[in-house]
Amino acid sequence: MNNILILGAGRSANACIQYILTSAKEHNWSVVVADSDLASATKKVGGHTNGRAEKLDASDVEARQALVSKADVVISLLPPVMHIEVAQDCIILKKHLITASYVPKEIQQMNDEFKKIDRMFMGEIGLDPGIDHMSAMQKIDEIKAMGGKITSFSSNVGGLVALENLQENPWRYKFTWNPRNVIKAGQGTAQFLENGKFKYIPYNRLFKEYKLISIPGYDEPFEVYANRDSLPYRAVYGIQDVPTIERGTIRYQGFCDAWNALAQIGLTDDTFTIVDSEKMTYLDLMEAFLGNSGKEGATVKERMAEMLGETVSSPVMEKMDWIGLFSNKKIEKANASPAVILEDLLLEKWKLEPNDKDLIVMQHQFEYELGGKKFHLSSTMEFKGKNSEDTAMARLVGLPLAIFTKLFMTKQIVATGVNIPVRKEIYEPVLEELKSFGVIFHEEEKEVNN
Amino acid sequence: MNNILILGAGRSANACIQYILTSAKEHNWSVVVADSDLASATKKVGGHTNGRAEKLDASDVEARQALVSKADVVISLLPPVMHIEVAQDCIILKKHLITASYVPKEIQQMNDEFKKIDRMFMGEIGLDPGIDHMSAMQKIDEIKAMGGKITSFSSNVGGLVALENLQENPWRYKFTWNPRNVIKAGQGTAQFLENGKFKYIPYNRLFKEYKLISIPGYDEPFEVYANRDSLPYRAVYGIQDVPTIERGTIRYQGFCDAWNALAQIGLTDDTFTIVDSEKMTYLDLMEAFLGNSGKEGATVKERMAEMLGETVSSPVMEKMDWIGLFSNKKIEKANASPAVILEDLLLEKWKLEPNDKDLIVMQHQFEYELGGKKFHLSSTMEFKGKNSEDTAMARLVGLPLAIFTKLFMTKQIVATGVNIPVRKEIYEPVLEELKSFGVIFHEEEKEVNN
Repeated sequence: MNNILILGAGRSANACIQYILTSAKEHNWSVVVADSDLASATKKVGGHTNGRAEKLDASDVEARQALVSKADVVISLLPPVMHIEVAQDCIILKKHLITASYVPKEIQQMNDEFKKIDRMFMGEIGLDPGIDHMSAMQKIDEIKAMGGKITSFSSNVGGLVALENLQENPWRYKFTWNPRNVIKAGQGTAQFLENGKFKYIPYNRLFKEYKLISIPGYDEPFEVYANRDSLPYRAVYGIQDVPTIERGTIRYQGFCDAWNALAQIGLTDDTFTIVDSEKMTYLDLMEAFLGNSGKEGATVKERMAEMLGETVSSPVMEKMDWIGLFSNKKIEKANASPAVILEDLLLEKWKLEPNDKDLIVMQHQFEYELGGKKFHLSSTMEFKGKNSEDTAMARLVGLPLAIFTKLFMTKQIVATGVNIPVRKEIYEPVLEELKSFGVIFHEEEKEVNN
Repeated sequence: MNNILILGAGRSANACIQYILTSAKEHNWSVVVADSDLASATKKVGGHTNGRAEKLDASDVEARQALVSKADVVISLLPPVMHIEVAQDCIILKKHLITASYVPKEIQQMNDEFKKIDRMFMGEIGLDPGIDHMSAMQKIDEIKAMGGKITSFSSNVGGLVALENLQENPWRYKFTWNPRNVIKAGQGTAQFLENGKFKYIPYNRLFKEYKLISIPGYDEPFEVYANRDSLPYRAVYGIQDVPTIERGTIRYQGFCDAWNALAQIGLTDDTFTIVDSEKMTYLDLMEAFLGNSGKEGATVKERMAEMLGETVSSPVMEKMDWIGLFSNKKIEKANASPAVILEDLLLEKWKLEPNDKDLIVMQHQFEYELGGKKFHLSSTMEFKGKNSEDTAMARLVGLPLAIFTKLFMTKQIVATGVNIPVRKEIYEPVLEELKSFGVIFHEEEKEVNN
């Protein structure tokens, strides 16, 4: 195995590509970086002797398969929706495939096919999913090895921005990953398990019913809202009988109440279009969403505050005001959904400035019983980006992917079929090498009384 | 044209079948009533000399097409989802087709095909859609003919139960049509136009933001919540420039606040399943939906009241209690969605008793300008059923369908292609004959000052 194909050289591909190129030199691999934007791919290869940039329209099956056919291992940094097609290419052409995205059902069902051709698919080996799986499994396996019984597991991750870059932003949030996914986050019903009882939080209450957690080193608590369906992770992590399992998303305090207001208004909806939206201002849009609410004669802002149960100058209303929802700014998207219109506004307001440092916070909390005693263990990782080009997000998504690729290419990890990184042979060497990049979990453990 | 095929002989088919059989005798038609339940079809034909019952599994394409091929006109009372397939049969076999359901896009697109074979599809000729279209269009055409300009149109319909049958039911509501549709009513975003401004109400606020209307003869006002997307009716009704158009659903007072509570809790959601629902009680389910809400130590009911912003004995909580949501009644549906579990409970609590009389209320309100003056016109129709077998719903859905069929068979109405009953040649004779069945609109008109 000497040939690596990296599909996609977008902004977040940097850390992954640099690591692979550096390893390539050491091991004498040849690396092709293919992107629809040749200049971007060329820039990322940077004249590296082991690298070559190629222009590729990933939806062009023939061109894509031509590149795949020449590789031994394919790393796909393409949008997740493309991975199924690429996986099919890899089965036809007998190639290994590695991605950082959630493994969709369609790929799970390719397990036998990948095994039959003695090739491997590795998914969910980025940050979240990725580092969360690996660091959680490491603790779970350690506790089990000691003879402990896990009674509670909660795992929270946030893609934030360093507080010092948020002085003038009352939301204390900026986009550090796919904006559309931020807008639509949580739609559906969150599902988790608490003290042996199944819990369901529908979208209309998700951002109202957040919890507070504390992170060592911060005086103020963080908000956590429940993250989709936590229940399948009982099987994935081998803790089928755990009475409490919850996965959540971390935000600075104040975010959830304000985002809840946007959700209540209807601004996060991506399922219908606003008629003639390009002829409206954001204030018009707010009025359109007032429906039958509010007193005659009052301003849109006053009526909106009343509808939300807020005062006009409450922190929630202040945040809405700050992004310009009550301004005469024209909506620029034609016949767009509320979600698209909101995204367009936030892209400007929540833009990462060149010197902003993004911040990843991950915290696992375990409760377990051992030798008749009960313990609480928290394991926390923080990672800060350098600037808007060299982000924590890009590093923590790209490095596990790249490290795993190197370990696999050098046969330090062996695998076939469809995998995610929950086995010790996989997570241990990857986590070990991640430490040298500053990905370090700090643990606090204490005995607890019932 | 002598042969009519009626597909579906369910409970609501009675009025339609009886009318058709009576006409068949007069005109010497032959009528086949086909249903998966032969006994039900046989009972409905009742030995009528012009009628014959057939057993038919409507999903059996061959058997269905065999019956369709022998008819001239097909009336489909099957579930709406079946109509597309039946319409395809009718195109292949060159038959006319009549239904009371909304015309889906797929059938709208068959307009040219029906025209090419010189056959007709008539849809939306029941109650709502149906009588609402016809009675609204009659007034709209009248006002236009006088030279009036319509400035506001609102149209509200409710499928209710006579108040005297609701003494012990705090919801003052029972199922008189498809229960699943009642549970899922309003999901999506309601859209309408008010004083030239587009208005949007998302589901999470739909039942909170109802309006009150008064109906002549009732001391108390009725609640109206917005009904789906009213905007297309501007084009359908030929009032493209009307500044206000709103369609709504009528309920007795007190309903919307309580239904809003069920929606907020998450009980109307049909998009995911409750794990092991068959092992739970309804009280367990309520606890599961409490998510992170409420004080420790309080009862589920107290915590739910707090989450909803209610007191434990408020009218909303009383209604929830009355249907048994806080009871230890076991859930009988396995791995079911919240909507299915709620429906199963309400099927018992909201069942029409043998002597209950259902009640249809329809009210159109127009504002128009004529000769420099402004007028308000309300047109109201009430129709009461006889009992749980002979319902207003079945009559008002079935009679327009059957009357139209007779008028079409006797060539008093001529049409080809895909239609809904908005043209005068269609609605006028149908409405005229409906009067003899007691479908009478009472009008109140007054001049209004600005």
